[in-house]
Amino acid sequence: MPRFSALLESLSGADGAEIHLASDPDLEGAAALDQAGKGQLSFLEKDNALSKALSSTGASALLLPCNAELQQQATQLGIAWVALKDPRLGFAEALEQLYPEAKPAAGIHPTAVVDPSAQIGAGVHIGPRVVVGADVVIGADSTLHPGAVLYADVQLGAGCTIHANAVLHPGSRLGQGCVVNSNAVVGSEGFGFVPTASGWRKMPQTGQVVLEDLVEVGCGSTIDRPSVGETRIGAGTKIDNLVQVGHGVVTGKGCALASQVGIAGGARLGNGVILAGQVGVANRAVVGDRAIASSKSGIHGEIAAGEVVSGYPAIPNRLWLRCSAAFNKLPEMARTVRRLNEEKAGQ
Amino acid sequence: MPRFSALLESLSGADGAEIHLASDPDLEGAAALDQAGKGQLSFLEKDNALSKALSSTGASALLLPCNAELQQQATQLGIAWVALKDPRLGFAEALEQLYPEAKPAAGIHPTAVVDPSAQIGAGVHIGPRVVVGADVVIGADSTLHPGAVLYADVQLGAGCTIHANAVLHPGSRLGQGCVVNSNAVVGSEGFGFVPTASGWRKMPQTGQVVLEDLVEVGCGSTIDRPSVGETRIGAGTKIDNLVQVGHGVVTGKGCALASQVGIAGGARLGNGVILAGQVGVANRAVVGDRAIASSKSGIHGEIAAGEVVSGYPAIPNRLWLRCSAAFNKLPEMARTVRRLNEEKAGQ
Amino acid sequence: MPRFSALLESLSGADGAEIHLASDPDLEGAAALDQAGKGQLSFLEKDNALSKALSSTGASALLLPCNAELQQQATQLGIAWVALKDPRLGFAEALEQLYPEAKPAAGIHPTAVVDPSAQIGAGVHIGPRVVVGADVVIGADSTLHPGAVLYADVQLGAGCTIHANAVLHPGSRLGQGCVVNSNAVVGSEGFGFVPTASGWRKMPQTGQVVLEDLVEVGCGSTIDRPSVGETRIGAGTKIDNLVQVGHGVVTGKGCALASQVGIAGGARLGNGVILAGQVGVANRAVVGDRAIASSKSGIHGEIAAGEVVSGYPAIPNRLWLRCSAAFNKLPEMARTVRRLNEEKAGQ
Repeated sequence: MPRFSALLESLSGADGAEIHLASDPDLEGAAALDQAGKGQLSFLEKDNALSKALSSTGASALLLPCNAELQQQATQLGIAWVALKDPRLGFAEALEQLYPEAKPAAGIHPTAVVDPSAQIGAGVHIGPRVVVGADVVIGADSTLHPGAVLYADVQLGAGCTIHANAVLHPGSRLGQGCVVNSNAVVGSEGFGFVPTASGWRKMPQTGQVVLEDLVEVGCGSTIDRPSVGETRIGAGTKIDNLVQVGHGVVTGKGCALASQVGIAGGARLGNGVILAGQVGVANRAVVGDRAIASSKSGIHGEIAAGEVVSGYPAIPNRLWLRCSAAFNKLPEMARTVRRLNEEKAGQ
Repeated sequence: MPRFSALLESLSGADGAEIHLASDPDLEGAAALDQAGKGQLSFLEKDNALSKALSSTGASALLLPCNAELQQQATQLGIAWVALKDPRLGFAEALEQLYPEAKPAAGIHPTAVVDPSAQIGAGVHIGPRVVVGADVVIGADSTLHPGAVLYADVQLGAGCTIHANAVLHPGSRLGQGCVVNSNAVVGSEGFGFVPTASGWRKMPQTGQVVLEDLVEVGCGSTIDRPSVGETRIGAGTKIDNLVQVGHGVVTGKGCALASQVGIAGGARLGNGVILAGQVGVANRAVVGDRAIASSKSGIHGEIAAGEVVSGYPAIPNRLWLRCSAAFNKLPEMARTVRRLNEEKAGQ
Repeated sequence: MPRFSALLESLSGADGAEIHLASDPDLEGAAALDQAGKGQLSFLEKDNALSKALSSTGASALLLPCNAELQQQATQLGIAWVALKDPRLGFAEALEQLYPEAKPAAGIHPTAVVDPSAQIGAGVHIGPRVVVGADVVIGADSTLHPGAVLYADVQLGAGCTIHANAVLHPGSRLGQGCVVNSNAVVGSEGFGFVPTASGWRKMPQTGQVVLEDLVEVGCGSTIDRPSVGETRIGAGTKIDNLVQVGHGVVTGKGCALASQVGIAGGARLGNGVILAGQVGVANRAVVGDRAIASSKSGIHGEIAAGEVVSGYPAIPNRLWLRCSAAFNKLPEMARTVRRLNEEKAGQ
């Protein structure tokens, strides 16, 4: 339960920032602005939808943007505050202080089944009922939660976290600090079948999946290995729940893939690509650096770097907004065209 | 194997209903109208697509709607029947009688790993390989199927069922009679990252997921906890398979979310909302009581109570139907407009 | 490490084919044309996007199509090659030779929990922490990977593979050679609820799921059982990851369902149907033999045999392509119509 002033010491950007400490409350936790009560910290960003909630918040301390009006309002309400360039980042740092995560103790639970050939690093925690196959390598300080299954020949860098009942298939290579959430599957067989006269014949999937450092894979998401070569997720890429990444996909660094995104085999994403929820990317499509696709869009072919696209097939967002608006007026337009056409015929 | 007349005693709405018992068959099971054979019960609703199947059904007994024509037809076919206001409800009740569910015996399987600090209610069944973490509370008569993982600090009300390999993360709170189906994940970390110069930084997700009484979560579905506060699913809400519920979402009571629905962070659903398959709801969207979204629609902003919407972005269903019809005639309309324009230019 | 000439003996279609063996390399593996190095085999199909990569490939041996130009080019590059009618099929066969799959040894791991009433066939491998319920029947030479859960009354044909943490619910019937990938769920309760004054009431799901011979189910996919009768997947049908198959769905033989497809309750697919990624099929829709739906399309009603459809609601692909092109020009068309209308009014 740190005092607000003590907490500030751990926030990047608080050093030298404008600070108002009418009081210096003991902080017992944090909450959203409209739900925060006494002893709680909250935050506000510029143009945040919750700005109106400031007048009625019960928060005792606030991380504010560099905005005189909001600061004045907080001061009048008697709330302690600090002005930060990035209050959201500050809030993330504050939550880490206020709710420190308990790291499970090192050791292997007696119900875990670990192949004798596996190499387990120092400080590793292997929980109940985990299965670790032959020739697996687990980097130091990694945590394997209950029921996780690592097939043979999986390698994890240091500081990885594998959540409950997640599955890593043979050949999977994880860098440092990767997180695989519950029930996710990494390195499973790609969906490759050759049509023959007697039905679909399996194309053996002999490749592997590589997750570079700091990649996170959401719950229930699936990342397939290819027939040959690699499926590769670039460093720092974050993948939400129930996302499908097909065989042979390569993403750049720092991408963000929202829930239920599907990326078909062989597609390529540049660095910093953002795909919103339920977006689909077709086979062998190419998405340039920092391109953004809004939710439910469907990408074929090639998207240039920095583009923002929407719709299916995906087109530039600004065009799509105008097309969608026109779509909603189609019945009216059809009527006008019909009338003009009839009048023309009647001339 | 009850007789039809005996079965009727357990059906709500059968008391005082019109009944035809040319015979009183022993019932050995139930089936759809077009597949039912001797000794089997079936049912029919008004305007049901299977109505035509009545003449050729092999069923020995029927739950019919209050419809003279169908009743006469059944009588002529020599089929015993009862007329109910809600034959589908009657069929649900009948199936419960004909196929009573075996409740697993109370007790903890020796291969389960249960933390000594967990509180296990009376009559609880804990199956093989279940893992129950520290400080977990399990209400009376709950059933945990094989491989389920309950992290620390999970609380279940009475009569809950957790199916095989499902995972409940810390802080999850389930009311009475909740069902979490196989491989579903409740209470996992929300997808919250702050963009920084050195990449995505995790926003700690310190909140929790609350499932009120009688909530059901489908196979493989994922319900995330928020950075602060709650994700809350209202009492009696039913969630199908592979649904994503983002961090901080709040739903009202009695909602139904069909398969592959995705609800982004902070969205709010009223009571009795129905979302059909593959619907997407954007961040912080608000859906009013009893609103309905047809399959694949994408909801932004606000949907009024009772509205039926379709399309992406979602618009009123009736308008969307007309717009979609016009969309299919766009090439023709484009031709007409081009011709009118050329004729105009040529005048 | 077979020589290329030895490998050819196992390829269907290589017998009597045109072969060029400037050298007869020892093959150490296989790779895509643009990534293959010394000692590696690769392949090329007619009109393949990688054709341009031929001139710079490092591959030592190639499976080529019957195309004189490509063959001449390979010869000039000093690469050994064989000309096949179906190089992709040949590559699948070659990968099997080059990367033979290790079959786990028969036996039951001591940490598996197998009900004494289960019948286990000869040569079956049951891995660590597998749970096999009462009255289960497992066909000869099947493999159950770690953490798989088979509820009571599940039956598997010979040669099935159940991957890690997959779940088979009571009544599931699998033919020979089926594959259920990691974290998939087969035979779970269909999403059936009857609306009543006091909320949703469960319709008991007493039916079962049948997977005919050689069906494959992707990671995280879910196949529900119906209230009565069967959900049935036709022989040789391949299902990708995160696919939902609703209660009572029936598919023909040899279908291919790509990732994130959702098929609602009671829909029927003919033989050889192909559904691309994120396609949705509505309740009780009917899709004819060999019909194809492109990604993200939404199918209602009935699709004729052999049709190719797109869009939502799905229409013939060729029409949809023209409608989509016109959609992208809607703002322009709207302007023209407005001008024509104003000019008309001004006449």
